[in-house]
Amino acid sequence: MPDTIFDQILSGQIPSYTVYEDEQVYAFLDIHPLSPGHTLVIPRERRAFLHELSDESAAAIGRVLPRICRAVLAATGAEHYNVLQNNGAPAHQAVFHVHFHVIPRIGDAGLGIGWPARRLEAAEAEPLLGAIRAALD
Amino acid sequence: MPDTIFDQILSGQIPSYTVYEDEQVYAFLDIHPLSPGHTLVIPRERRAFLHELSDESAAAIGRVLPRICRAVLAATGAEHYNVLQNNGAPAHQAVFHVHFHVIPRIGDAGLGIGWPARRLEAAEAEPLLGAIRAALD
Repeated sequence: MPDTIFDQILSGQIPSYTVYEDEQVYAFLDIHPLSPGHTLVIPRERRAFLHELSDESAAAIGRVLPRICRAVLAATGAEHYNVLQNNGAPAHQAVFHVHFHVIPRIGDAGLGIGWPARRLEAAEAEPLLGAIRAALD
Repeated sequence: MPDTIFDQILSGQIPSYTVYEDEQVYAFLDIHPLSPGHTLVIPRERRAFLHELSDESAAAIGRVLPRICRAVLAATGAEHYNVLQNNGAPAHQAVFHVHFHVIPRIGDAGLGIGWPARRLEAAEAEPLLGAIRAALD
């Protein structure tokens, strides 16, 4: 994986607004926020996509997310928020090092969401389910 | 927290397309998918919002997310995807039991994202950072 700006942030070459850090996780303010308190939570492990991340790094991020969310809510007064993690440029990923966005929803400020859902029919679901479960085994 | 449809899914009262389950985590196909393979990953722990979730449940979900993402990609052929977790109706939450969406991006199908970012100025960042860090301690 090529270097990203997050490597320079993790190494301290580029300063960042550090929200939280431990041996496996680093969190800092997004300098292009969607709303006040918009925070990025990243693994120290260098992986571009979530599906490449080790179980240990992924568990460490999962474990600390509720605590970081509580702190962001307490600090901003926000009550609602989105947690978003993008994989691939077509899915709006811009920095190719895994990152979870914690994005407060404050009035109109926050993540814009489009939800063009449709109904899942059994004829589609059954083979799909079989393929996913086979891939999990 | 009031009962939700996810309680009935977890108890088996309502059938679901089970993708994965362990002692703490349950994953199933969203029956109103944004794209093929759209999967929901939920804790067995009954909490409405991520910031209410125990560290243990949150870590268990984090740990299994990469594995579920790999299986969804393998089954659908998708290369790109979003992981989204919504908290509060203004943030597009519809079922008030914590859930992570795994949403493949396949051509135009997938999550719609609006990204009205602005620049974070130091005058805003410094007090915000202080408040978040104070709330974390």
